Amino acid sequence: MKTVKIGIVGFGTVGAGAAATLLANREVIAKRTGVNLELVRVADLDITTDRGVSVPAEKLTTSADEAIREADVVVELVGGTTFARTLILKALNAGKPVVTANKALLAKYGEELFAAAEANGVDLYYEASVGGGIPVIKALREGLVANRIRRIYGILNGTCNYILTRMEREGADFAEVLADAQKLGYAEQEPSLDIDGFDTAHKASILASLAYGRWFGMDPVAVEGIRDISLADLRYADELGYRIKLLAIIKEISGQVEIGVHPTLIPKNALLANISDVFNGVMVEGDMVGQTLFYGRGAGRNATASAVVADLTDVAMNIASGCPRRVTFRKEEQFAGLTPSGEVQSRFYIRLQVQDSPGVMAAVTKVLADQKISISSLIQHETAGGKEVPLVILTHLACESRLTAAIAGLKALRAVSDQVKILRIEDL
Amino acid sequence: MKTVKIGIVGFGTVGAGAAATLLANREVIAKRTGVNLELVRVADLDITTDRGVSVPAEKLTTSADEAIREADVVVELVGGTTFARTLILKALNAGKPVVTANKALLAKYGEELFAAAEANGVDLYYEASVGGGIPVIKALREGLVANRIRRIYGILNGTCNYILTRMEREGADFAEVLADAQKLGYAEQEPSLDIDGFDTAHKASILASLAYGRWFGMDPVAVEGIRDISLADLRYADELGYRIKLLAIIKEISGQVEIGVHPTLIPKNALLANISDVFNGVMVEGDMVGQTLFYGRGAGRNATASAVVADLTDVAMNIASGCPRRVTFRKEEQFAGLTPSGEVQSRFYIRLQVQDSPGVMAAVTKVLADQKISISSLIQHETAGGKEVPLVILTHLACESRLTAAIAGLKALRAVSDQVKILRIEDL
Repeated sequence: MKTVKIGIVGFGTVGAGAAATLLANREVIAKRTGVNLELVRVADLDITTDRGVSVPAEKLTTSADEAIREADVVVELVGGTTFARTLILKALNAGKPVVTANKALLAKYGEELFAAAEANGVDLYYEASVGGGIPVIKALREGLVANRIRRIYGILNGTCNYILTRMEREGADFAEVLADAQKLGYAEQEPSLDIDGFDTAHKASILASLAYGRWFGMDPVAVEGIRDISLADLRYADELGYRIKLLAIIKEISGQVEIGVHPTLIPKNALLANISDVFNGVMVEGDMVGQTLFYGRGAGRNATASAVVADLTDVAMNIASGCPRRVTFRKEEQFAGLTPSGEVQSRFYIRLQVQDSPGVMAAVTKVLADQKISISSLIQHETAGGKEVPLVILTHLACESRLTAAIAGLKALRAVSDQVKILRIEDL
Repeated sequence: MKTVKIGIVGFGTVGAGAAATLLANREVIAKRTGVNLELVRVADLDITTDRGVSVPAEKLTTSADEAIREADVVVELVGGTTFARTLILKALNAGKPVVTANKALLAKYGEELFAAAEANGVDLYYEASVGGGIPVIKALREGLVANRIRRIYGILNGTCNYILTRMEREGADFAEVLADAQKLGYAEQEPSLDIDGFDTAHKASILASLAYGRWFGMDPVAVEGIRDISLADLRYADELGYRIKLLAIIKEISGQVEIGVHPTLIPKNALLANISDVFNGVMVEGDMVGQTLFYGRGAGRNATASAVVADLTDVAMNIASGCPRRVTFRKEEQFAGLTPSGEVQSRFYIRLQVQDSPGVMAAVTKVLADQKISISSLIQHETAGGKEVPLVILTHLACESRLTAAIAGLKALRAVSDQVKILRIEDL
């Protein structure tokens, strides 16, 4: 049986999980694949802290270079986009295949890293970068390879999904739930990467690259987070038959591709709307297969390790079978261009504060009509006094630029307050 | 670019879909993989009927042998377990890799077919045999390879799921919905393979083989269908917070494996319970990844073709990279033995007809207590007269043999009618 030597760089949560998985399940993996994955080095600046996994002392090192030298495959689990980038390039240039979970790095430097992998004739795998333990990279790259990809909707950030789920379930405010999530370790002390949508955007960019054959980077990705989602929005959504999720939205329409991250109303009875707490899910629609959905834990030590070790097994089988780069990212575009800014079409949720006086509704609806935006439903509840009342409007499909113009028009009305909340609607 | 020649045998629904997909999406597949899939032959006894796909006349043949001879990869889509078996063996023995969607054949002859593939050093792929377009074979074999598989629950038969969904939604009887489903083409005129659970059982056997490294065949698979599910059962389930689905159930507990197909109560809020109509879904629980779920169309021309062509692409990449049999089924058991008959543990739903008279409840509960079966909940509604009333009991975990003994004991009671309905409960 062929033995493939593994070197892990980064002994944090995921690194410890990957080491533990390799040690615990090596035999079962060997039975399934005929390949023996041998952990030879774990490198980290800190090799004294107990990580709850008993890696023999002689395999621990503070030298990433030593791990690269001794291994047949290098696992990058340090995170960040500086040292990790240098490390991966060094490994690839040394002819060593690399497995990484680093979504920010791939989203920003995917093109450079895959060029280096190609130049050196070695593999670069990254299943754990999107959706944690869910094998969605493999599904897109291989399982659905026969399809033109029409749409991808992803709930890809566990922190955001956890916060939205608790807000909805408990009727609690964003700030309150965020503070509690931070206390419980479900949100970082500096939560911006998660709650402002950037982490989801990195993953969206990676999924789009797989679907359409270009490393898009972050520039074309429109990013909104969940910081401004209020309890009122969740309640109106509920009343209208929707739930609000932070979605990665990737669409191809007539050859034009759009990539965005938006808090989005989706129908309550859709499977995606029923993915709760820290779980992740990705809906992929192909021209042949129709809608598919992939669900599981998007983060956490062992779930992420499951994806890292699956990649390691793939790379090890490539080594054992003498077929490196059997599958890889190929820079061959399968679309015509990006949807020009402003031309993205969507249904929208609009929440306004309006004066409770005659003619206001007529003025508001006229602004929308002037932009050819058609209303699909509208809620204005009776309120117990007060000069201002909330007005919620759902639109049919509308162009983003017209929506922007309409919002400006609404804000210019004396009867409408400046605070207009806009959310997307996707009917899946 | 390497060209790989494809021969399809069987020009029915799925064969036509596979041909159409190869013709429509060859370019995008080539861009992604660097491999050119060329359809060279489509063989069928009937090559004159219009299948809605324009395969050039010179590629159509009535000779399966010709398709085998001309192709680098043979696709078996004739179905059945006689001609299809001969055909696949012939192709493998001619050194040609095979892609098949034939679940009955694999469940029954998987061991023989994989031995032939091994002896000839060629690939045998079968993604379309379970879950239609859902890439769940690949997920189990590769994406979750780092996990010991603890449980698999599958909704794997679209006909059954369609019937149960409509019964529940419309409050209609089984026979009525079945008749309508037959009219609409969602159920066969001879529906036994689907509604008596055999189709699901074939798929369960295949999934179990992947999870545990043995071709189990059909003998160890306990099979129940949905013919006896009544509207009353659906309503009691609903009242108790459950929905009834026909589930493939595969479990490993302390090294012992059980495989079964049962109509099963699952909690309404579980994702699996929300898979409706003809859709399929598979929940796979691994020791590292936790729970994952894979969802999509389990049948239909294009969805199944998506899986067939994904397999073809895999095989073609193996040919192009010179690595046949890079992944395959390896007969290396990863479990200790099958759970002995009668020792399967489950929660159960028991519906009885009992006389509405003093002492009946005491007698019924004593029978269960004597078998050490613990009651988790119980419903007896007031009825408007009538000597017999329905009594529904949910149990905690109980051994199947004790349940059987208890049922015999209940039937022996004078106050209990002979018709006792038993269903499983899985809390996921």
